[in-house]
Amino acid sequence: MTVQSLTVRSTTLDVMWADGAISQFPTIWLRDNCPSGLHPETQERMLDLLALEDEPELISAEINENIVDLKYDDGHISYMPVALLSTHRPGQREFDAGDVPANLWRGDLGKVGVPRHTAAPVLSEDSALNAWMMDTASLGLAIVENLDDRVEAGVEIAQRIGFLRQTNFGTTFEVINKPDPNNLAYTSVALPLHTDLPNQEVPPGYQFLHCLANEATGGGSLFADGFAMAEDLRLEDPEAFRLLCEVSIPFRFHDGDADIRVHRPVITLGAGGEVIEIRYNAHLAGIFDMPTEIMPAYYRAYRAYMAKTRDAKYRVELKLKAGEMVVFDNRRVLHGRDSFDPSTGFRHLHGCYVDRGEFFSRLRLLASNG
Amino acid sequence: MTVQSLTVRSTTLDVMWADGAISQFPTIWLRDNCPSGLHPETQERMLDLLALEDEPELISAEINENIVDLKYDDGHISYMPVALLSTHRPGQREFDAGDVPANLWRGDLGKVGVPRHTAAPVLSEDSALNAWMMDTASLGLAIVENLDDRVEAGVEIAQRIGFLRQTNFGTTFEVINKPDPNNLAYTSVALPLHTDLPNQEVPPGYQFLHCLANEATGGGSLFADGFAMAEDLRLEDPEAFRLLCEVSIPFRFHDGDADIRVHRPVITLGAGGEVIEIRYNAHLAGIFDMPTEIMPAYYRAYRAYMAKTRDAKYRVELKLKAGEMVVFDNRRVLHGRDSFDPSTGFRHLHGCYVDRGEFFSRLRLLASNG
Repeated sequence: MTVQSLTVRSTTLDVMWADGAISQFPTIWLRDNCPSGLHPETQERMLDLLALEDEPELISAEINENIVDLKYDDGHISYMPVALLSTHRPGQREFDAGDVPANLWRGDLGKVGVPRHTAAPVLSEDSALNAWMMDTASLGLAIVENLDDRVEAGVEIAQRIGFLRQTNFGTTFEVINKPDPNNLAYTSVALPLHTDLPNQEVPPGYQFLHCLANEATGGGSLFADGFAMAEDLRLEDPEAFRLLCEVSIPFRFHDGDADIRVHRPVITLGAGGEVIEIRYNAHLAGIFDMPTEIMPAYYRAYRAYMAKTRDAKYRVELKLKAGEMVVFDNRRVLHGRDSFDPSTGFRHLHGCYVDRGEFFSRLRLLASNG
Repeated sequence: MTVQSLTVRSTTLDVMWADGAISQFPTIWLRDNCPSGLHPETQERMLDLLALEDEPELISAEINENIVDLKYDDGHISYMPVALLSTHRPGQREFDAGDVPANLWRGDLGKVGVPRHTAAPVLSEDSALNAWMMDTASLGLAIVENLDDRVEAGVEIAQRIGFLRQTNFGTTFEVINKPDPNNLAYTSVALPLHTDLPNQEVPPGYQFLHCLANEATGGGSLFADGFAMAEDLRLEDPEAFRLLCEVSIPFRFHDGDADIRVHRPVITLGAGGEVIEIRYNAHLAGIFDMPTEIMPAYYRAYRAYMAKTRDAKYRVELKLKAGEMVVFDNRRVLHGRDSFDPSTGFRHLHGCYVDRGEFFSRLRLLASNG
């Protein structure tokens, strides 16, 4: 965007852009962001903001090609690239390739089909990696297929994004029925829809479940978009939605090696009021401890959300085959499974997590190199 | 606490305790928490809350020794331990050994002395581990001394608490001056007080800096309690405090392998209005992007907090010796260092992080086994 005119005012520089829009840059901002204040090697800020006057005064602003020359009353001169001003207009967030809008879905995604991507190109080509990650970011759910028949094959794909998130269950985990289980996932019973580890300050971000065998009768996988269920509840029952956003409930996991607890709401909203996180796990929810006065209303709200997790309208069902890996945003998409009969065959999923931070970092790097 | 009387009401059971206090337990809560609803092996909840009526009805409540027998109109009978009712009164949070109150400090801590603990007992005795962790939790700062002269000695102590937090800098890091640095920590320049990695969704919790050598001239360490500075600002300039709590600013770290960004406020408050987190790192703060209208006031607020980080009143200075490790809550205590002259001697710190989740889990386990 080119500059149409510059006006020096007492506390701002007003820039009129080619399209007629006006941005007002406070003088202290201009001085704070003078390009001379960055470390030449690390690009980190070196300027001592406290060394500036409270109200630095701008004397003149002149445009020379793509640079705005700024002169201050203390003799300082800045050469501000127009591009810097244009991309950093006050009140406007800089473009962020990691800011992928959520595309909400309901059971109809099952008919369209969960997006599928092939393992080999995801492993070797950045464009395929990016395409798969964009589907996963947007829908919160995608499948990678044709994985090698090795336990590490799913982890290798996850590590294309970044390092694994370690939890008290390790960096990887085996979903098989095992003796002396410390978690229902390690039994053969049905698992109702849930998000993993809501008892953590930050529950794991993206979850990877690589199917190595699924020969038992039963054991199908269920998914539902927790954001879509929350948005529907917001429309249908605003008071229930409000309670699920505002009232924290206890979540806890406890065994011999860990006792990890938080109080958090089921629904977390972002700065713009949009749903950014769901914590829902009926068997890790602790004993409700809100005041008596709001408890019955809270139970109604909680059960209203719970009812949606049982509603076929929101569900996608699929039975993973050996060589397939389902990947989903564990802070958005609820997952579950049907019970299975371990006597009819082997069922083995190999799982791991990569957090949102690493995921969006990779998307940004792919966008800037792409 | 023993029960004085029980009163069955239309939607609650009212319990009068021995001290005369009354708790009202909503009937749905009683039914939800019937002890018969837990998985016998995992202790996770098995009850299907949706299978209950909206308003279950209690017919009778009788106390038999330490058990309250509850009869419902649908024939269900619960045997509720009095202890369960007593520890889970509505509106009251269950005791949590991980809930350690912050003991705020200012520069005077330097005179009293930062608490010191000896490595060997911390490694071998749970009571010494607990004592050190309680100091670290309460003050956000403690020193472990007499560590072995091995690079891994500090990590071994950190791992007494739990696994290490991995970041884009690895699971451990070397603070030495090195060529082609991607971060100011890897130079010999002074580092003003800051918290590490405020650009992460959750910055690392507890930081461990094990000093292996500190022979260079300069290179002293600085610490300040970010909570204390925030609380003082709240009293002196409530408007500045409010802006630092409510306005998010961009934080970003970017190199060839990572581009990790968030928008967050400098000060984060907990549910009770108490300060629970500080993000302050002048060289990782991005270009401010709030609207023009609030920007000058925000700069004043930010500079007011910044001025406190320069004020000797808040500072503790110490020069780590080989064999000492400083441990601090990176989401509370700001750290920095004086510049040093690498030609006068070697300076080498070996660092790692353990997150709050693992830290408080360990405190809870120590309390329940102690």
